[in-house]
Amino acid sequence: MPNIGIVGAGVAGLHLGLLLRKHDVPVTIYTDKTPQQIAAGRLLNSVAHHAPTLERERHLGVDFWPVEEYGYTCHHHYVGGSGPLRFRGDFSRGSSAIDYRLYLPKLTEVFQQRGGDLRIGALRTEDVEGVAGQHDLVVVSAGRGAFTSLFPRRPEYSPFEAPQRRLCVGLYHGVTPSEPKGVTISMSPGHGELLEIPMFSREGHVTALLFENIPGGDLAILADLKYDDDPALFTKTVLSKVAQHHPDTFERIDPAQFRLTSPQDLLQGALVPTVRADYAELPGGTFALAAGDAHAVVDPLLGQGANSASHSAWVIGRAILDDLGFDEMFCQRVAKLRSDVVLSAAQWTNLMLQPPPAHLLGLMGAMNENKAAADEFTDNFDYPDRQWRIVATADRTRAFLAKHGTVLP
Amino acid sequence: MPNIGIVGAGVAGLHLGLLLRKHDVPVTIYTDKTPQQIAAGRLLNSVAHHAPTLERERHLGVDFWPVEEYGYTCHHHYVGGSGPLRFRGDFSRGSSAIDYRLYLPKLTEVFQQRGGDLRIGALRTEDVEGVAGQHDLVVVSAGRGAFTSLFPRRPEYSPFEAPQRRLCVGLYHGVTPSEPKGVTISMSPGHGELLEIPMFSREGHVTALLFENIPGGDLAILADLKYDDDPALFTKTVLSKVAQHHPDTFERIDPAQFRLTSPQDLLQGALVPTVRADYAELPGGTFALAAGDAHAVVDPLLGQGANSASHSAWVIGRAILDDLGFDEMFCQRVAKLRSDVVLSAAQWTNLMLQPPPAHLLGLMGAMNENKAAADEFTDNFDYPDRQWRIVATADRTRAFLAKHGTVLP
Repeated sequence: MPNIGIVGAGVAGLHLGLLLRKHDVPVTIYTDKTPQQIAAGRLLNSVAHHAPTLERERHLGVDFWPVEEYGYTCHHHYVGGSGPLRFRGDFSRGSSAIDYRLYLPKLTEVFQQRGGDLRIGALRTEDVEGVAGQHDLVVVSAGRGAFTSLFPRRPEYSPFEAPQRRLCVGLYHGVTPSEPKGVTISMSPGHGELLEIPMFSREGHVTALLFENIPGGDLAILADLKYDDDPALFTKTVLSKVAQHHPDTFERIDPAQFRLTSPQDLLQGALVPTVRADYAELPGGTFALAAGDAHAVVDPLLGQGANSASHSAWVIGRAILDDLGFDEMFCQRVAKLRSDVVLSAAQWTNLMLQPPPAHLLGLMGAMNENKAAADEFTDNFDYPDRQWRIVATADRTRAFLAKHGTVLP
Repeated sequence: MPNIGIVGAGVAGLHLGLLLRKHDVPVTIYTDKTPQQIAAGRLLNSVAHHAPTLERERHLGVDFWPVEEYGYTCHHHYVGGSGPLRFRGDFSRGSSAIDYRLYLPKLTEVFQQRGGDLRIGALRTEDVEGVAGQHDLVVVSAGRGAFTSLFPRRPEYSPFEAPQRRLCVGLYHGVTPSEPKGVTISMSPGHGELLEIPMFSREGHVTALLFENIPGGDLAILADLKYDDDPALFTKTVLSKVAQHHPDTFERIDPAQFRLTSPQDLLQGALVPTVRADYAELPGGTFALAAGDAHAVVDPLLGQGANSASHSAWVIGRAILDDLGFDEMFCQRVAKLRSDVVLSAAQWTNLMLQPPPAHLLGLMGAMNENKAAADEFTDNFDYPDRQWRIVATADRTRAFLAKHGTVLP
């Protein structure tokens, strides 16, 4: 029986750890924060889990927030401009967004209950060799830390040198959910997007507003404005920006009730989308696989990061269970098996971060008229590899629309 | 609906053509021989179809030789030397060997009945552009011809500059089948292997003897000896070589009945195992995918060539059915999806052609004592990717045997 070390207790680390424990594989997860610190800390993200991820959770017996009760079923699109577009796409299976400050501690607890070993403490460069020596394979899923830097950036999948969006995500009261309950993806050309996400948090059902602001655009200030300095100014500024750029969400806001659910329920910042090497050989000959944020940091625009990380964890876990060695051949096999989903998630997101090419604008226009195309596009949030095959080139988008009886404008 | 051109009417071309016709995709197969010429011609090979290939045939409705009646269920191993090894491995699902002079013409006929377009005539270099212009994608499955040279050899998967075996395969009367009915894999260290295969041919159930002779070894002469010059000498020589090197098969031969079924039922020669590039861009921008022998020529030692070709055809066919374009992205996807099976079949075969490393000798010895290990090894003739994961390194073979409770000697 192999002994597996996992660096990082995010969704990749926990899904992998739980899958391996289900098959009685000895697993140690190394993390720098206790579950209590996570639970009591600042908002971590506003990520949704799509159907394939929820399916993995059911398989692991950690579906504590059934999608029927906590989930949503569609995307509402708003594309601003002189003739705004409004269309809806339905998922064939629901998604859900659970605050990771509930989710991660609960899964960590289950991991320990099921015999997983949890080690708390920051790993430094001088710890790498010692950790490697204790395991047959190390999976690095933490986006920061001594292990992460082992995996060189892959320039061919990392087109940006700087963040493409300045982010401001918070949980709010005072937003009436869309009907049917879904995520609203609102685009303000030249300024960025607002993702309005029905989320379950410590205060129950709330609304996450994830502002994806283009640097230099009218909403970029939201990433810098300090809530604690002047909560009223912050709230007023958010409201006025939503009113101006994201009118469909604004319509469902009651200004009198609109407020951040707590000062901690706000996260501001920016990231550089980066794909790193799949694996590295550690001192002593143990191999380390990158997963999650150590492998691919994607902008949260399309909600792909956590789902891609969970997929990667699953591929790794199944390969561990059915392979005979944890050598370079193993690492190359994992790299190949997960590449379609993981790299497509990164490539699709990176495309959507850039000024839209004509065929993407055409696709939006076509989906505004063609519900079946919008449904398939929406469902492909579950399958980024399929989505990338549609949007990668104008010819492909044309073929996709032709299949739905529509001509690319 | 795309329009697909296929160069070559072997198993890859026909399985692909039939799969596409099942979904009403327009397909043209280009071949240089009529089905009648194939049927009346010289023995083409002695290949067995393994369970995954038979499953594809059932899916296509071309399972004209049901495995229950025409197939076999095991491998009998004989390894010569001072202490010969004899062990059997059972398949979980049967295999079968049908003479391709029955098989290919029948499938070609069905292809045409189902609306496939068959074009007879040798394609020359000057035809490439014209053919390319008539199709959205060209799949090249012929091991020879103007199209094949479009795909450069991949040296990292093509370790040999010359044939590793001198081949002599013929169909014979006078060999009583093994019990249970199976393929006998007989190894004469330093001289090569004999594959004794129960085959169904024009004369009914006969025995194929495929001599895999190491150049310079005692049996290499079998690849050169002209049957037509002196049939009696040929038969006598074959008999004496079998007696000396492959005693388990010799025991089941009745010398009085032993003879080639017909002068045409003999094929002698040699090939250089070669893996070529997955795809090429043709003049005019149409892409061509290599498949079958145009992609990977493998020595027939392990019976992987046709099954690998059929697998490749299936991956291509499914990708054609579910993708939106036939661009470089499409070709790269196909390359990735089939690589595990196709490259593992080549790598495993190439390993077995070389003087056996200690861990392979150890594996043989261990299987001689451990039926479960021998069964899994046998079943993996259906899954060359799994087999390669066992035999690629000594550590992996050790882990495989440990799983079966045996220590690598």
